[in-house]
Amino acid sequence: MGEFIWPVRVYYEDTDSGGVVYHANYLKFMERARSEWLRSLGFEQDALKNESGIIFAVRAISVDFRRPARFNQLLEVSARIGACGKASLSFEQHIRHNNELLCSGRVNIACLDAATLKAHPIPKHLLAQLSS
Amino acid sequence: MGEFIWPVRVYYEDTDSGGVVYHANYLKFMERARSEWLRSLGFEQDALKNESGIIFAVRAISVDFRRPARFNQLLEVSARIGACGKASLSFEQHIRHNNELLCSGRVNIACLDAATLKAHPIPKHLLAQLSS
Amino acid sequence: MGEFIWPVRVYYEDTDSGGVVYHANYLKFMERARSEWLRSLGFEQDALKNESGIIFAVRAISVDFRRPARFNQLLEVSARIGACGKASLSFEQHIRHNNELLCSGRVNIACLDAATLKAHPIPKHLLAQLSS
Amino acid sequence: MGEFIWPVRVYYEDTDSGGVVYHANYLKFMERARSEWLRSLGFEQDALKNESGIIFAVRAISVDFRRPARFNQLLEVSARIGACGKASLSFEQHIRHNNELLCSGRVNIACLDAATLKAHPIPKHLLAQLSS
Repeated sequence: MGEFIWPVRVYYEDTDSGGVVYHANYLKFMERARSEWLRSLGFEQDALKNESGIIFAVRAISVDFRRPARFNQLLEVSARIGACGKASLSFEQHIRHNNELLCSGRVNIACLDAATLKAHPIPKHLLAQLSS
Repeated sequence: MGEFIWPVRVYYEDTDSGGVVYHANYLKFMERARSEWLRSLGFEQDALKNESGIIFAVRAISVDFRRPARFNQLLEVSARIGACGKASLSFEQHIRHNNELLCSGRVNIACLDAATLKAHPIPKHLLAQLSS
Repeated sequence: MGEFIWPVRVYYEDTDSGGVVYHANYLKFMERARSEWLRSLGFEQDALKNESGIIFAVRAISVDFRRPARFNQLLEVSARIGACGKASLSFEQHIRHNNELLCSGRVNIACLDAATLKAHPIPKHLLAQLSS
Repeated sequence: MGEFIWPVRVYYEDTDSGGVVYHANYLKFMERARSEWLRSLGFEQDALKNESGIIFAVRAISVDFRRPARFNQLLEVSARIGACGKASLSFEQHIRHNNELLCSGRVNIACLDAATLKAHPIPKHLLAQLSS
């Protein structure tokens, strides 16, 4: 599958007194891109929870912060599937500004039973799209 | 009842690129003080939910931001009950640094049924303490 | 001037364990709408700071939280100027979902000298647009 | 050097509608522990910036999220230096609840010139303490 791109504007809420985006907030930007990628495939997470009883949870992250993003910049946040198991996914994600790479990360996601928070197979109709 | 004081340290997470605490984050500080005031009276909010089936929700706020708080400052956040109804509470709260008033607010809280999110009377054993 | 509308999607980052949007985060949504309204008039806040030496700061807020917003909803956040002084502005703002009013607020904004954080007149070319 | 422990209470602000602490917020908890560890050694970050012209910035993180933390829990967040270079540090950090490991991470920190945001040697009086 190709790379999905989601634009994210930097507001004051995202910055810190160092004058740049606060490091933990890049993780929020990456999640927004993953959510919008899933929506672009036709899957709404509230429907997946209500109808299939599953939620997605972040299991591990590894992020390099190369250059700072700043207030008011319009960033491009990418999401691409790196690997896909029966009940897990990994994403490669990049954050760029004017084609300059600011931040890159690998994010491992688990598919969980929404009630028990235990591992649950990714629904087949979703898995079929992910593998295509 | 007297004024309850809770110390809050300002970390990078709380600031913005204006060099000061981001305005919405003062509301988090005020909630921390309300939570710790309730704990100081012997009430844990997770127990109130599990045993009495209630949660508290913010219904209205009115806040004046007078002077900015800055990175690394140790703030004093106060909470004092202004009024107490059957299913609602209002708090007067102040945030100070070195005795200088930075921010003051009035926060109206509703007691809700945790399942339906509809108004629910404050449990009697809690109300008795609030009125004493 | 008319009402400006900005769409905001609710992500996990915005919610709390009560299952709804965390109350302080509505203030972030309102600021996003004010920023985008200003951009729609042709003003970028980083340019206003660098070229005119001013920033805008929230001086006071008054917000009613009527109904909760939930994960994955697409909200409409409005901004409309209520009053405009030499160095201050006030906004009337509403947050709606499917035309249902969830939250309404009044936000008072001060125009500040970016270096001293003291009151500074709103630049004339901006004031002219606000008054039109 | 030994392991430094800092207590962190989970408030609503930290949780999400999955009922657990939002993943990016563990990074905030880890930073609080690093800041308090530095303070426990006698170093205030605002003084380091004003007097030595340096700030610390997160360069890379790698975090495993093993079990969720929940509303109202009192967590223990640890910080221990794993390696120390001329202008960089790496931390091993763990988050536990009732001695159960919830989350572990490695955080690489760069010492930067506060004005240029370029690498800057760690001040000698600080480095001496870190190496002892």
